[in-house]
Amino acid sequence: SSRFLVTRLGEDWIFLVLLGITMALVSWTMDYASAKSLQAYKWIHGELRGNIPLQYLAWVSYPLLFVLFSSLFCHLVSPQAIGSGIPELKTILRGVVLKEYLTVKAFIAKVIGLTAALGSGMPVGKEGPFVHIASICAAVLSRFMSIFSGVYQNPYCYTDILTVGCAVGVGCCFGTPLGGVLFSIEVTSTYFAVRNYWRGYFAATFSAFIFRVLSVFNKDAVTITALFRTNFRMDFPFDLQELPAFHTHILSIGFMAGELMPRECINSLFDNFTWTKISGSPTPVGLGRSAAWVHPDVNVFVILLLFFLMKFWMSAVATTMPIPSGAFMPVFILGAAFGRLVGEIMATLFPHGIVFDSILYRIIPGGYAVIGAAALTGAVTHTVSTAVICFELTGQISHILPMMVAVILANMVAQGLQPSLYDSIIQVKKLPYLPELGFGHMSQYNIFVEDIMVRKVKFVSLQSTYREVKLLLDSSSLKSIPLVDSKGKRVDSLSANPSISFFSVLTHDFSILSPQTHTLFSLLGLSHAYVTSIGKLVGVVALKEVGNFICAGLFKYTQLSEVFAHLSRL
Amino acid sequence: SSRFLVTRLGEDWIFLVLLGITMALVSWTMDYASAKSLQAYKWIHGELRGNIPLQYLAWVSYPLLFVLFSSLFCHLVSPQAIGSGIPELKTILRGVVLKEYLTVKAFIAKVIGLTAALGSGMPVGKEGPFVHIASICAAVLSRFMSIFSGVYQNPYCYTDILTVGCAVGVGCCFGTPLGGVLFSIEVTSTYFAVRNYWRGYFAATFSAFIFRVLSVFNKDAVTITALFRTNFRMDFPFDLQELPAFHTHILSIGFMAGELMPRECINSLFDNFTWTKISGSPTPVGLGRSAAWVHPDVNVFVILLLFFLMKFWMSAVATTMPIPSGAFMPVFILGAAFGRLVGEIMATLFPHGIVFDSILYRIIPGGYAVIGAAALTGAVTHTVSTAVICFELTGQISHILPMMVAVILANMVAQGLQPSLYDSIIQVKKLPYLPELGFGHMSQYNIFVEDIMVRKVKFVSLQSTYREVKLLLDSSSLKSIPLVDSKGKRVDSLSANPSISFFSVLTHDFSILSPQTHTLFSLLGLSHAYVTSIGKLVGVVALKEVGNFICAGLFKYTQLSEVFAHLSRL
Repeated sequence: SSRFLVTRLGEDWIFLVLLGITMALVSWTMDYASAKSLQAYKWIHGELRGNIPLQYLAWVSYPLLFVLFSSLFCHLVSPQAIGSGIPELKTILRGVVLKEYLTVKAFIAKVIGLTAALGSGMPVGKEGPFVHIASICAAVLSRFMSIFSGVYQNPYCYTDILTVGCAVGVGCCFGTPLGGVLFSIEVTSTYFAVRNYWRGYFAATFSAFIFRVLSVFNKDAVTITALFRTNFRMDFPFDLQELPAFHTHILSIGFMAGELMPRECINSLFDNFTWTKISGSPTPVGLGRSAAWVHPDVNVFVILLLFFLMKFWMSAVATTMPIPSGAFMPVFILGAAFGRLVGEIMATLFPHGIVFDSILYRIIPGGYAVIGAAALTGAVTHTVSTAVICFELTGQISHILPMMVAVILANMVAQGLQPSLYDSIIQVKKLPYLPELGFGHMSQYNIFVEDIMVRKVKFVSLQSTYREVKLLLDSSSLKSIPLVDSKGKRVDSLSANPSISFFSVLTHDFSILSPQTHTLFSLLGLSHAYVTSIGKLVGVVALKEVGNFICAGLFKYTQLSEVFAHLSRL
Repeated sequence: SSRFLVTRLGEDWIFLVLLGITMALVSWTMDYASAKSLQAYKWIHGELRGNIPLQYLAWVSYPLLFVLFSSLFCHLVSPQAIGSGIPELKTILRGVVLKEYLTVKAFIAKVIGLTAALGSGMPVGKEGPFVHIASICAAVLSRFMSIFSGVYQNPYCYTDILTVGCAVGVGCCFGTPLGGVLFSIEVTSTYFAVRNYWRGYFAATFSAFIFRVLSVFNKDAVTITALFRTNFRMDFPFDLQELPAFHTHILSIGFMAGELMPRECINSLFDNFTWTKISGSPTPVGLGRSAAWVHPDVNVFVILLLFFLMKFWMSAVATTMPIPSGAFMPVFILGAAFGRLVGEIMATLFPHGIVFDSILYRIIPGGYAVIGAAALTGAVTHTVSTAVICFELTGQISHILPMMVAVILANMVAQGLQPSLYDSIIQVKKLPYLPELGFGHMSQYNIFVEDIMVRKVKFVSLQSTYREVKLLLDSSSLKSIPLVDSKGKRVDSLSANPSISFFSVLTHDFSILSPQTHTLFSLLGLSHAYVTSIGKLVGVVALKEVGNFICAGLFKYTQLSEVFAHLSRL
C-alpha cells in the first residue's frame, strides 16, 4: 500500500521537477539572450562615436527593429501571446475556457517575442509573460504526463496544474520562490486550494535553485543567495565590497535609460552611497555602476526626477505595445527611482541623520528605494507579497516592519481609488471574470436571484420530440439544457459533455450578493445556474450578469435605484 | 458614493486595528508574567543553595503547582481551553459549529491557564493556544462591532473573521506577521479566500508592530527588527556584538532545561560560536548565555544529545497534559538542538571548513540549528511556512534556498509517513472534519454517490399532516428536512433556520471522490447533501461518511475491496 502512495506522489514530483527545470532553463536562456542583445546595442552605440547622425539612427532603429520583430512574430504565430497574460490566466483559473491561450504555439510566440522585447532595451517586464509561459509549460507537460497517469486527464486537475505553473513563473523569473508563490496566489486566485501551496513551493524552489545555479555557473552572480543583494547597516553606511568594481562612463541624462540594463539600474538604485554627498566632488573610486547617476554639473535630484519622468512615459508606451510585456518590472524601477529621490532629499535635509531617543539614525537613500519599489508595485497590483519579493531580491529581511507598513498603506490608498492593474485589463478586455466580493460588500443590498435572472429559459421536456431537441441544440450555443417534466419541474440537465454531470440550483429568493452565490460561481467554475421556485424551473442566472452586478455595486453605484437603472441598461 | 466605501472599509479597519492592539497587549502581558514567574523560580532555586533536599523540593513543586493550577482553572472555567485549539479551529473553519469554543469564558481560561503553564517552565508552546485566543478575540470583537454595522452579523462573515484571528494569533505570538499569516493559512484552511489575505496581513503587521514596540519599551529588545537576531557571515564566523554581555554560571546537564528560558535557549542555539572549539579551553569572555552549553569535563555532543533526549520526553509529557499548550515551540527547540548537534559534528569533522570550487566555506553550527528548527517544525505540522517564520525570527533571509530545500525534503518524508500533528489530533478527538483530498488521490476509485449514500431519508411531502411533521421534527435532530411532491421528487428544503435557504443536490451517479464533491462539502460548509436520481429523492450523503471514506482511502487501503470492507464496518 505504501508503494502505491509513493508511485502516486512520485509522478507528481516528477511533474513538478520537470516543470521547475524547464522554466529555469527558459528563464536563464531568455536573460542570457536579451543581455547579449543589450550588449550589442551598447557596442554599436560605442563604435559609432563621433558620427552623431549615424549614432542617433542606430540608437533609434535598434530597439524599433526588435519591437517590430516581436510584434510581427506574435501576430503571425499566436496573437494570444501579446500582453502580460495574467488577466487571461486569472479568467482561466476562474473556470472559463479561453481558446488558444495554453498551446505550444502561444509558448513559442511568447518566449521569442519576449526575448526580442527585452533585448530591445524598452522597459518591459518579464514576470507577467513568465506566468503565462510557465502555465503553458505546465499544461503541456500535464498532457505529456497523462500518458503515464490518468490523474492528469481529470479536468478539475487543470486548476491545480495551472496554479503551480503561475507560482513557478514568478518564482523563476527573479529567483524568488517564496514571493513568487505568494504573488501568484494573490494575483491569480479567488479561492486558493491549500493543497497546491506545498506543490507550488516545491516546484518554485527547485526552479529558483536551478536558475541561481545557472547564474553562478555563468559568472553573473557570486553566490546563489540573492539577486539584488543589499547590505544596509546602521553603523556603516558605505560598503565597498558589494559593488562590483567595473566602471561605466558618465552619461548625459537622455541616454541613461538605455545605458543601464534594468538589473544594473535596480542594483545602483539600491546601493549604499548617498549621491548628494558625492555630487560636485570628484567621483570616488569604487562607485561602480552608480557613477552613471552622478554628473559633475547637474544636480542629482534633477537627474532622478528626469529619469522618473522619462521612465514613466516610456513604460506607459512599452506596456501598451502589441508585444509580450509585463508591467511589474517597469513599475518596480519607477518605485525605486521615486524612493531614491525621496531618500536623497531626506539625506540633504538631515545630513547627519536623525536623532531619536539619543540614538543617531543615518539616512540610507538605498533603503528608501527598496521600500518605494515594494510600495509602488504593491499598490499597482493590489498585493502585499511584493514586500516578500523585495526581501528575497535584496537578501535582507531586517526592515520587515517599515516595509510591510509602507506596502499596506500604499494598498489602502490604491484599493480605495481603483481596481488593480490586472482587474482593469480584465474590464478593458471584457473578459468573463467574476470580480471579488469585497468585505462589507456582502449583504449590502437585498437583491434576490429572481431580480436579475433571465426568465426565458430554453428547456427540453420529457415530451419533447427529436425534432424539437435537435432544433434547440442547433439554434443555441448552450453547453447544457435543462430537462423538465410535464409540470415544468426541473429534473435533470442534458449536457453535450457527459462528464459534467454536476449542476447547481438556486432558489428564486436567494440573495445574489451573498458570499455563497459568489463562491458557487467562482469556485465551482459555473457559467450559469438554474433558478427554481418550489421545484419549478423559473429562470437562469449567468455568470456575466452576476459579474456585471457586482462590478456595478463595487465601483459605481451606492443607491439601490441606481443599481437597477444600471441593470436595465445591460 | 466614495464616502460610503470609506465608511465600510473604515469599519473593517477599525476592527482589524482593535484586534491587533488587543492581541499584542495580551501576548506581551503573557510573556511578561511568565518571564517574571521563571525569574522567581530561578531566584528560589538560587536562594536555597546548600540545602539540597529543599532545593530539590522547590525545583519539583514549583512547576507542579503552576501546572496543577492551570489544569484546575481550565477544568472549572472552560474545559474547551485545554490543548492547542488549532484542530478545533480547523474544524470550525470547515463549517462545523463547536459549542463553547469561542466564548469569553474560554478566552479567560486559556489566557490565565497558558500564562501559568508558560510560567511553570514546562516546555509548552504559545502559538497554538494563541491562535485560539486570537480567534475568540476576533469573534467577540465582531459581536461588539455588529452594534455599529450589520455586516458582522452575516453568518458567512464568521469564516472571514476567524481566518484573520488565526493570522493575528501566530503573527503576534513571535512578532512575525509574514510567517504568521502563511502558517495560519496552511494550518487552518482547505480553501483560502484570497480577499482575507490582505486583511490578515494588515492586522498581523499592526499587532506585531505593537508587540515589538512594547518589547523595546520594556528594554527586552534593542530594536524592533527581529526577535532571535542572527548574523551569519561567511567571512567572519565570530560576532561578539550580537551577544548580550551577561553571564550565567556553568550548570550541570539535568538543570539545563530549567535554567534557560525557551527564548534564551533558542538564542544560544542559534549563536555564531563553534562550541567544540571552545570546549576544554577556558571560557572566553563574551560567550554570554551560550556558556550554559559548555562544560569543562563533559563533551558538547553528550550535552546536546542529553538535552535533546530530555526535552523530547518532557515535551511529550507537557503537550499531553490537560492544560492550554502548543507543540510548535517545543518542536522548534528540539529541531534547533538536533541541528546544532549535527552542526557541531560537522565542525569537528571539518575543522577548517569545506573547500568547494576553490572557495573555503566555514561550518557555522548556528546555521544548522536554524535549518534544523525550521525543518522539524515543518515536518511535524506539514507546512513550509515555518521557513518564513525562521527568516523573520532571525532577521536573515540570505540562506533561503538551503532552508527551503531542507523544509521541503522534511515535508516530503513526513507527509509520506503520517498525517500532520493537527490532523492526528482531529482523528484522535474524532472531530467532524473532512480530510484534504490529496493530489493524485482524486478519481482513484470509481465510487459513486449511490454507493455510500444512506437510502432511508426522512422527508416531508406536500400531503404530510401537521402531526406527521411535528412527530418528525421531535424525533430527529436534523436541522433541515427535504420536502417532496406526490411523485417523490425533491422540491425544497424545510429548515429550522430560515436563513439557510441554500441546499445542494448531487446526482446518484456522481463520483464521491471527485474534487467537486470535496469542494462542496469543505467550502460551502455543508453537513449533508441530498441525492436525486432523475429528480427523485433517493438518498442523503453526510459529511461524516465522505470524511471516513477519504480517510480510509488515504491512509489505509488501496484495494477497492478493502475500501468496501471498511465501509461495511462503519
